[in-house]
Amino acid sequence: MTNKDARTPASVQDDMSQEAGKSIGWHKAYVEGTRSDLRVPVRQVHLTNGQSVTLYDTSGPYTDPLVDTDVRRGLAPLRENWIIARGDTEEYAGRPVRPEDDGIKHTAPRGGLRNLDAVFPGRPRQPRRGRAGEAVTQLAYARRGEITPEMEFVALRENVDPDVVREEIAAGRAVLPANVNHPEIEPMIIGKRFLVKVNANIGNSAVTSSIEEEVEKMTWATRWGADTVMDLSTGRNIHTTREWVLRNSPVPIGTVPLYQALEKVDGRAEELTWEIYKDTVIEQAEQGVDYMTVHAGVRLPYVPLTARRKTGIVSRGGSIMAAWCLAHHKESFLYENFEELCEILAAYDVTYSLGDGLRPGSIADANDEAQFAELRTLGELNRIARRFDVQTMIEGPGHVPMHKIKENIDLQQEICDEAPFYTLGPLTTDVAPAYDHITSGIGAAMIAWWGTAMLCYVTPKEHLGLPNRDDVKTGVITYKIAAHAADLAKGHPGAQEWDDALSDARFEFRWEDQFNLALDPDTAREFHDETLPAEPAKTAHFCSMCGPKFCSMKISQDIRREHGGSQAEIEEGMAQKSKEFAAAGNRVYLPLAE
Amino acid sequence: MTNKDARTPASVQDDMSQEAGKSIGWHKAYVEGTRSDLRVPVRQVHLTNGQSVTLYDTSGPYTDPLVDTDVRRGLAPLRENWIIARGDTEEYAGRPVRPEDDGIKHTAPRGGLRNLDAVFPGRPRQPRRGRAGEAVTQLAYARRGEITPEMEFVALRENVDPDVVREEIAAGRAVLPANVNHPEIEPMIIGKRFLVKVNANIGNSAVTSSIEEEVEKMTWATRWGADTVMDLSTGRNIHTTREWVLRNSPVPIGTVPLYQALEKVDGRAEELTWEIYKDTVIEQAEQGVDYMTVHAGVRLPYVPLTARRKTGIVSRGGSIMAAWCLAHHKESFLYENFEELCEILAAYDVTYSLGDGLRPGSIADANDEAQFAELRTLGELNRIARRFDVQTMIEGPGHVPMHKIKENIDLQQEICDEAPFYTLGPLTTDVAPAYDHITSGIGAAMIAWWGTAMLCYVTPKEHLGLPNRDDVKTGVITYKIAAHAADLAKGHPGAQEWDDALSDARFEFRWEDQFNLALDPDTAREFHDETLPAEPAKTAHFCSMCGPKFCSMKISQDIRREHGGSQAEIEEGMAQKSKEFAAAGNRVYLPLAE
Repeated sequence: MTNKDARTPASVQDDMSQEAGKSIGWHKAYVEGTRSDLRVPVRQVHLTNGQSVTLYDTSGPYTDPLVDTDVRRGLAPLRENWIIARGDTEEYAGRPVRPEDDGIKHTAPRGGLRNLDAVFPGRPRQPRRGRAGEAVTQLAYARRGEITPEMEFVALRENVDPDVVREEIAAGRAVLPANVNHPEIEPMIIGKRFLVKVNANIGNSAVTSSIEEEVEKMTWATRWGADTVMDLSTGRNIHTTREWVLRNSPVPIGTVPLYQALEKVDGRAEELTWEIYKDTVIEQAEQGVDYMTVHAGVRLPYVPLTARRKTGIVSRGGSIMAAWCLAHHKESFLYENFEELCEILAAYDVTYSLGDGLRPGSIADANDEAQFAELRTLGELNRIARRFDVQTMIEGPGHVPMHKIKENIDLQQEICDEAPFYTLGPLTTDVAPAYDHITSGIGAAMIAWWGTAMLCYVTPKEHLGLPNRDDVKTGVITYKIAAHAADLAKGHPGAQEWDDALSDARFEFRWEDQFNLALDPDTAREFHDETLPAEPAKTAHFCSMCGPKFCSMKISQDIRREHGGSQAEIEEGMAQKSKEFAAAGNRVYLPLAE
Repeated sequence: MTNKDARTPASVQDDMSQEAGKSIGWHKAYVEGTRSDLRVPVRQVHLTNGQSVTLYDTSGPYTDPLVDTDVRRGLAPLRENWIIARGDTEEYAGRPVRPEDDGIKHTAPRGGLRNLDAVFPGRPRQPRRGRAGEAVTQLAYARRGEITPEMEFVALRENVDPDVVREEIAAGRAVLPANVNHPEIEPMIIGKRFLVKVNANIGNSAVTSSIEEEVEKMTWATRWGADTVMDLSTGRNIHTTREWVLRNSPVPIGTVPLYQALEKVDGRAEELTWEIYKDTVIEQAEQGVDYMTVHAGVRLPYVPLTARRKTGIVSRGGSIMAAWCLAHHKESFLYENFEELCEILAAYDVTYSLGDGLRPGSIADANDEAQFAELRTLGELNRIARRFDVQTMIEGPGHVPMHKIKENIDLQQEICDEAPFYTLGPLTTDVAPAYDHITSGIGAAMIAWWGTAMLCYVTPKEHLGLPNRDDVKTGVITYKIAAHAADLAKGHPGAQEWDDALSDARFEFRWEDQFNLALDPDTAREFHDETLPAEPAKTAHFCSMCGPKFCSMKISQDIRREHGGSQAEIEEGMAQKSKEFAAAGNRVYLPLAE
């Protein structure tokens, strides 16, 4: 890596320090578990009334001023001792890294030209996998009644009993994606019983973007609240980009191995083989990918079902597999070799994200035969994965109008034995390119309320281009809104405390507290300052909507002051209070302070 | 008015011409009715495949290059002949305009200092009202079986039978806001049987903004799709601002007369009287305000119900009336004089928008006793208004978590005899100031699906400051998305055609058609060009997400080409097709064209 590669993430940290300097009302804190190396990060917001509010934090060590992060060294391997202590995994030489892994062809002799040291300058490491005969997945541990440090971590993070975490994982209703080769993550859980999670996609493409941009986007996305990140790179340097992202990511990383496999056959879908695919899965599992999208539900007989759709197959992975099936007129090699794939994933505790390759790409195609045929196959594959102790979630649409969303998730929950649903949107209309974070944020909030465990974000660039840093932030914030709105609607314990704290601050004109409690404090502060820039306005008992002469909140405070007692006291004392009010000069607003 | 005032709206037109220059794929067209002066505007999008799509158009004559608009002259009085021909109204001298109407005090002798000519330079006009004994509201006409030109206009606009329009108005399930003094409007209808409508709020405040900004915001809001505009001005020049807005507005204008009345008593709520209020209502009705928010449901006994709320009363009108009740310990003068108010509104065909002064201002306060007590009173007032032939809609919340939205609208529909619901959002969480267009867009889409007839937009500046031009656009576009998503979910005839046209264009890589069909063509084009700026990319059969080497849409097209027949033909011919596919070189993507 050149110095240039390392520079950009450093500048991200500079930005954060500056922002932290402005947002003095909060700091990074940790909740201690039963062991000294189990410390759950939280965002502690200090209010001007002396109280404080604790919020879930995904930003990783980057927002801790006491931790010296260096993107060339990678994050500290938080889970390493936990993994080693279990004694059920072993280090091994691993698959040699080849130039083809980065899309570089015919320029070097065959065989391992480079090793991991060359790919990433941080501490040397060898890949790790389960010893023969050992079941090393969180699902296996949960089933045999073990509460792992990872489970304790997420229990503290979610503020629930550790046994609830274990039970949900054991039942297959939740997953805890944590590859034994990704010890840097702060464990998190995906399941309808827990807070709704948000995934952000990053990844270079054949057309644009670079390694440093992707690492920066990952750091940026988690800073704003992404719970997991998928690296969907398709161009050059796929292997190296992923290594840098993994070594610096505090959240689980997902991929679609098929994308890299296709690069290895120069984009010729029909030249894909099970061997090339398997080799790619092992390559990525050794690097530490926590969950992988596998489009094993796109079966040969389903391909013709898409022929008369308005927008055919819109999933990239789905169309690759459809093209392969079409070229060979054979059943999908992913479907045929699914059990062997389960064995591989189990050895690293890679979680399945069973892809919906036939998801609808338009309102017209929602909930059609092709989609539900694939869903039934995903239900079948989910049961096979479970036999191999592989954690599994199911991917969902796509484009679905509001009135078809509930049918969609109800069917998924039924067919897939309540395995966590992981949905893209859904977009509730097709007519607003450039605003698909919003068309899909609507559907995302609804489907999450009805039980989706994780939402895959959509940025304003969807259908149009590759998201830049601003788009990533807009996508993440929009989806955090959808997720939190669903947490509220589901009555998740603690969710409303956050709203209440912000509403109290609003009612009491504690502007700084409003900003610090906001999902995006910087933008809230900036918008306020646009209309009322002066510093005194931050403590003013009015805002720019009504101005200083008349303020509804102020009147409400008067009412509360006058009617603060019981209902009986209120009714009884009202006439008397009215007289006092008049005697006091009928002041329902603050004096003009111009 | 100075030249400066006239300049800004002219520059809006310049912007539009420029944009029209870029967006050559559409033009303004008209659908002719049964009479030559009944021409319904539409936006005709011309696709590159020779087809065209007709979209609802709210932008008024400003987007018609054949119409010479001049903001100092105002729009042509489209409805004037229809109103005169009915013979049931009369012109009269009208109430003299006083300096106090614009918030100017003690600087001139009492009595009418200025006339309308001074307020607005356009053609001289006198106010009009119903003759004694005549019922001149669209509700009265509908009840006695008349289909007015206004009703025919909206029937053509909504693509429904005129008798459906008449029936819905007669039943009180829809309103057609059209003051006899606002002949400039292009009639529109608000009711759950029709397309979901969007209102945009504008208005200066004591803190900032000016007349020209407000006229510009109105033009801008309707250009992006606002169906009505509320002028919520509270500072100086209220009367004059409103006159300019009305004379230039192609959409119905709503107001909250209480805001101006409060200005007339220098912000002292307790000094408000029925006489001052009534005079203000007449002043505004003579100018042509089409609907008025009246907070007559905030009754004395309900005020204490808000005392222990988290955020008390957040409606400005609600808190003004609560303060008045509190100061006098008397029943609301709006409630007490409601029948007289009905008589006034009926004379001009001003539509009631019965305000929800006790709407919740936080998640914690949603669907509480105060809110529903007021709602029951609004149901009672709706029945009274109906006795006077006054068209009526009911305003709704506010802040409501997703799981309480349906209860809210179901209750409103039941209590208010299916009178049109007109809701602000609702916001589904409090934690995202600066993104409340999104927190509320989610709730807006849902409540519209369940029957809300018109959505009041929320901009990103909600709770923080006054919206600027960009915020107005963002708010309107977000709410057009919510409204259209609801139209789709309700199965509104024709709604899905728009989505289908855009999806077809997407599938066939007709980029220019995608842009021209988009809710916001300019931003969609801009986002596309950010990643792939070159002109050839507009006709490329790929996009920046997957790049030229592999494209899911392209594969789907191959599948469609190979499996375009019946299901039986597809299954039968599949093996054969597979061979052909291989023979043709297995080309599933276009050659690289770098």
